[in-house]
Amino acid sequence: MSNPSILILPGDGIGPEVMTQVRRIIDWFGEKRGLVFDVSEDLVGGAAYDAHGTPLTDETMAKAQAVDAVLLGAVGGPKYDVLDFSVKPERGLLRLRKEMDLYANLRPAQCFDALADFSSLKTEVVSGLDIVIVRELTSGIYFGEPRGIIEEGNERVGINTQRYTESEIDRVARSAFELAMRRDKKLCSMEKANVMESGVLWRQVVTEVGKDYPEVELTHMYADAGAMQLTRWPKQFDVIVTDNLFGDMLSDLAAMLTGSLGMLPSASLGAPMANGRPKALYEPVHGSAPDIAGQGKANPIACILSFAMALRYSFDAGEEADRLEASIETVLAEGLRTPDLLGEEGVAPVTTEGMGDAILAAL
Amino acid sequence: MSNPSILILPGDGIGPEVMTQVRRIIDWFGEKRGLVFDVSEDLVGGAAYDAHGTPLTDETMAKAQAVDAVLLGAVGGPKYDVLDFSVKPERGLLRLRKEMDLYANLRPAQCFDALADFSSLKTEVVSGLDIVIVRELTSGIYFGEPRGIIEEGNERVGINTQRYTESEIDRVARSAFELAMRRDKKLCSMEKANVMESGVLWRQVVTEVGKDYPEVELTHMYADAGAMQLTRWPKQFDVIVTDNLFGDMLSDLAAMLTGSLGMLPSASLGAPMANGRPKALYEPVHGSAPDIAGQGKANPIACILSFAMALRYSFDAGEEADRLEASIETVLAEGLRTPDLLGEEGVAPVTTEGMGDAILAAL
Ligand SMILES: CC(C)[C@H](C(=O)O)[C@@H](O)C(=O)O
Ligand SMILES: CC(C)[C@H](C(=O)O)[C@@H](O)C(=O)O
Repeated sequence: MSNPSILILPGDGIGPEVMTQVRRIIDWFGEKRGLVFDVSEDLVGGAAYDAHGTPLTDETMAKAQAVDAVLLGAVGGPKYDVLDFSVKPERGLLRLRKEMDLYANLRPAQCFDALADFSSLKTEVVSGLDIVIVRELTSGIYFGEPRGIIEEGNERVGINTQRYTESEIDRVARSAFELAMRRDKKLCSMEKANVMESGVLWRQVVTEVGKDYPEVELTHMYADAGAMQLTRWPKQFDVIVTDNLFGDMLSDLAAMLTGSLGMLPSASLGAPMANGRPKALYEPVHGSAPDIAGQGKANPIACILSFAMALRYSFDAGEEADRLEASIETVLAEGLRTPDLLGEEGVAPVTTEGMGDAILAAL
Repeated sequence: MSNPSILILPGDGIGPEVMTQVRRIIDWFGEKRGLVFDVSEDLVGGAAYDAHGTPLTDETMAKAQAVDAVLLGAVGGPKYDVLDFSVKPERGLLRLRKEMDLYANLRPAQCFDALADFSSLKTEVVSGLDIVIVRELTSGIYFGEPRGIIEEGNERVGINTQRYTESEIDRVARSAFELAMRRDKKLCSMEKANVMESGVLWRQVVTEVGKDYPEVELTHMYADAGAMQLTRWPKQFDVIVTDNLFGDMLSDLAAMLTGSLGMLPSASLGAPMANGRPKALYEPVHGSAPDIAGQGKANPIACILSFAMALRYSFDAGEEADRLEASIETVLAEGLRTPDLLGEEGVAPVTTEGMGDAILAAL
């Protein structure tokens, strides 16, 4: 039987340097735990544009479809701001999500005890926080047609379309209910059903799906109220399910509550493949942070935790994932901090590689 | 010369009871300061639906068009959840915004010193906070066509359309730049230009308009990053300009940062009328809070501060507005608190009317 396969797409900015640390972790699992992966690497985003004039080549797309899991670093940077919309770095990532049909984006927002002080929120508001936002990732206003900038009369008009079919809502709702069943059995669905018909349909379909999960306590909230409640008292939530655009904002907001964006992983999952594994892409929530790229300042933990999610969701290796997560908690408890995690106490920061060393040692 | 005119639309939930206190304040200005208004009152939202089967009658709409300013309480409530989309309470408010063409929605998020502890954010993050979000209010996905729930194949599809014309972006950008000129001369524009073409156009037009305001430092931020940065360090901002939907979420988020939603007013302004006054509607940021309606628990301050904004923006009575705002700071400094403002110290709360009494006394 061949080894499970991983495609690594480091991308732009700090992507490559955090991914270097992930590769060391992957190698460790091969050498020490007999978990050997076939790892290949390719370009995405601005890096792919620089090499090939497109943020994702058809060849890379085909490779992504063929492997068991994709690990992605980050895409984008000011250098590419001038590019035409159709070849912006982000289009590479969006194409992966769309063509792999990764409809359920799981974004945990978890507050690490050692870092609770680091949040801009009061410690009691965030300590012990552990929620997951399930964001629909392949539809909505990100992909709806018609779209573009057209001429009308003598002015330009910018157009995008929010479009959700019943089945698109149904399947992501099911993912969210399944997750809630494995957690605290509380699901809150967010939309703007008071203003948008797509939100009305969203609410109806989620309510319908809920009948198959009578044990889960389902609530609904308008997305603006959701943003407020996440800020006021985030621990009232367990799992949140929402659409692509609201999910983009709400998951970033939830991430920032923890105060440590450099710590947060994500998993984007699709339907099961022939081998039973879901189509999957794992990436940190943080962006490409071009301002600190190449300086050894980036925190590799979010990307390493994304690999832990891969172990859990793609490779049925939950215990190995626990081991990896525990070793990260150990190094944090020991006081190791990359620059993004420094408070005002004047601890000396470790480098990206230093953090990798420490996690390997803790493993 | 006839007196300036105000149409009061108390609406639903706590709307009527907070508006009762505003009327007392309005009367005070007439009696004591010679600022006499012609005040009329009418129904909007669920209250209008109950009486007339529509959340806003054509007669009320005509009155709103004819007066110098509209003061609105709040609309909505669970009782109306079952109503068809087209007659939901919110449609009354949206019709007012659209037909009065109130394109610039000013939402200050200001942290009152006496209440800084009340925020879920650390005191140093929010104390002294004073930012304004300028939200486009008459276009975007709130109003774009096509919209609705259609049948396609054998399933339903929910559709909404984001649509922004150049001139729609231009005029709200100008309002935001003008406001920035009167404040700290810093404007941050938020969209998702990395994902949405309407955001690309938004960024281009705002940049163009910026050339007419060379003194204002203009920056751009993706709306998801904006949600993060508002949470992390809101004081980095002065004025923010954004579209209808992002503005809905970001202004609610900004409001919650202050910890005292019951304190925040808003002004929705359109083009100047024949008498030089802008078309205008003033309303608190908070909702109708049906759970506490009719119990004397509602905080009338947001609605009273909305009237202060009316004094400033519609009635050229900035000094009277200052006087009203100062008297609110006085009662807060004296320790008066409606139930929503109570921390854990066990101060006895005042009622909605008690708060009105105190503000009148301070005036
Ligand atoms: C990079 C960008 C296209 C992306 C998005 O908007 O989805 C990012 O913000 C995210 O949340 O993964
Ligand atoms: C009541 C609702 C229609 C409204 C909106 O979404 O604009 C409210 O949330 C607001 O922000 O004023």
